[in-house]
Amino acid sequence: MNENAEASKLEDMRKSIVVSSRVRLARNLEDYNFPNKLEANEAKDIISKVKESLDGYDINFNAVIMAEADMLYKEYLLENHLISKEMSEEAKGAVFINEQNTLSIMVNEEDHLRIQALLPGLHMDNAYEMCDKLDDLLEKNLRYAFRENLGYLTSCPTNLGTGMRASVMVHLPALVEMGFITPILENATQIGLAVRGLYGEGTQFIGSLFQVSNQLTLGFKEEEIVNSIMGITRQIIEKEIEAERILVSKLGIVLQDRISRCLGILATSRVMKINESMNYLSKIKLGIRLGWITGISDEEINRIMIKVQPGNQIIDYKAKSQEQIDTGRANLLRTIFKDVDFVG
Amino acid sequence: MNENAEASKLEDMRKSIVVSSRVRLARNLEDYNFPNKLEANEAKDIISKVKESLDGYDINFNAVIMAEADMLYKEYLLENHLISKEMSEEAKGAVFINEQNTLSIMVNEEDHLRIQALLPGLHMDNAYEMCDKLDDLLEKNLRYAFRENLGYLTSCPTNLGTGMRASVMVHLPALVEMGFITPILENATQIGLAVRGLYGEGTQFIGSLFQVSNQLTLGFKEEEIVNSIMGITRQIIEKEIEAERILVSKLGIVLQDRISRCLGILATSRVMKINESMNYLSKIKLGIRLGWITGISDEEINRIMIKVQPGNQIIDYKAKSQEQIDTGRANLLRTIFKDVDFVG
Repeated sequence: MNENAEASKLEDMRKSIVVSSRVRLARNLEDYNFPNKLEANEAKDIISKVKESLDGYDINFNAVIMAEADMLYKEYLLENHLISKEMSEEAKGAVFINEQNTLSIMVNEEDHLRIQALLPGLHMDNAYEMCDKLDDLLEKNLRYAFRENLGYLTSCPTNLGTGMRASVMVHLPALVEMGFITPILENATQIGLAVRGLYGEGTQFIGSLFQVSNQLTLGFKEEEIVNSIMGITRQIIEKEIEAERILVSKLGIVLQDRISRCLGILATSRVMKINESMNYLSKIKLGIRLGWITGISDEEINRIMIKVQPGNQIIDYKAKSQEQIDTGRANLLRTIFKDVDFVG
Repeated sequence: MNENAEASKLEDMRKSIVVSSRVRLARNLEDYNFPNKLEANEAKDIISKVKESLDGYDINFNAVIMAEADMLYKEYLLENHLISKEMSEEAKGAVFINEQNTLSIMVNEEDHLRIQALLPGLHMDNAYEMCDKLDDLLEKNLRYAFRENLGYLTSCPTNLGTGMRASVMVHLPALVEMGFITPILENATQIGLAVRGLYGEGTQFIGSLFQVSNQLTLGFKEEEIVNSIMGITRQIIEKEIEAERILVSKLGIVLQDRISRCLGILATSRVMKINESMNYLSKIKLGIRLGWITGISDEEINRIMIKVQPGNQIIDYKAKSQEQIDTGRANLLRTIFKDVDFVG
């Protein structure tokens, strides 16, 4: 392989390790109590004001009123990272979502407004720009609570200042496999960041997916937060690539065997639990990154990881019981992986 | 399904449960010591005499002299049930084998002659006929040690009388799965038969394969032994069929899932150990029996169960190390199961 091809391959590996980038801004309105002390009619007022503010925008937003949405649809929104667990349980809230599901505003969650941009890949700067643009638009119509010395006021003091939380979702199977993940999780806190397993608890990192996010919002410019997360993420990416190299040379055909068998199971199973499917998909994602799998792209795997979630099964495939969810998931995966090949 | 189709389906299930039938006759020559006290030149004499006796026969036999055969080839013969473990370690011995590997004579194992017929399916009567015919032929040239009151004399008193050991290999996955196998193993001894796991020890019944054989050789006619084994085998077959019915109705799609996944793993693995492959093949055999798998026959699975054995890998695929055996096995299975489908 020549130098250019090698560099391009490395770039693809880096891209594959970063599943998505997310930025959210917490904003509150000057003339209202924070949502936890908000009257029902005031909550409605705020929702209306946000809606009006969006009307003149060049992007269409769908409004979902929490009090009117059913549990299953809320589960779906939750799995697609469009609302929080708290929002799904909050009758006062609403969420506005653009058509691509990349830009959204949660209204009356912990803060009056939570503006969020969620993009595939390492595009935190773009995500920040999207949030910033929408924030500017809303600010024309809404009177934000802002103090010169404290920045944007927020319901919880940990969000004061920029009101910004930025995060990157990364796929780190080799670091998990080799037991190198714990120091990474621990060291991040020393520089004001957090790295957490996205699914599962304790030492069970389902799907080997992690979230890198900032812990501090006050005393930094937005750009500094973005740069700091992108910097640490790039370091973690290089560590994962190195760990994958070691894993390949250490396990050789045994690693090929493990990944290839996942393909076999995904192409043949008739019932599959969510955690099991996430772990197999994680292996396939690694296989694609290593150039061992053809017939499916890394981006498709990222999308499938959302599609296999229970709520998605319920909404997209009308599953009505746990068994139907698990068989629906298996059917979906079988269809997708039927023609995917392991080339070793 | 009408009555005829139902009956024909049941008959196919019964056939699939019986992998093979085997009969062997122990014979000794009047003028020689038993093999354990045999001089090298006497052993050679006996081999020559058997060879001469076979020359006039209408079947061609290949002779393999143990002292000249290499370890790997002996391993191969062992796995194909053509020689015993003891024979493979015995320099004085030889084996004569017909072209189909169905009829053989071990010379100078525990007894001077061990005539064996091994046929696929429940064909113990045919196997007995083949042995009997060959026995008659040999008796024309060889002076067998026979006493009116004891029958054929044998090196070990447990073989006295008919000198006959008959056995059936049966596949009992549902009885194993449901924990119904232990009483069957125990009850057989009460009627002078033995049912034993073919591979593995203790409660690990690899591949769910069992051997039903007679324990008593004296005081019964050959036909009685054959009938007794065929009788108990038929009972075990019906028990297995009943257990499979229960398993299907109890596990439903979960059983389909297990079997379908085995297919996926067999079609994709890159390294596979022998016991693992036997257990997967056993599940596939059950799947074929239940009508859930197309593109491969039950007989082929029986043949593959022999082909995956280490010695076969060495002989047929020239494997030179444990890793090559395990990758060669995986490659063979991948090729075979690539186009096999689960139809549920």
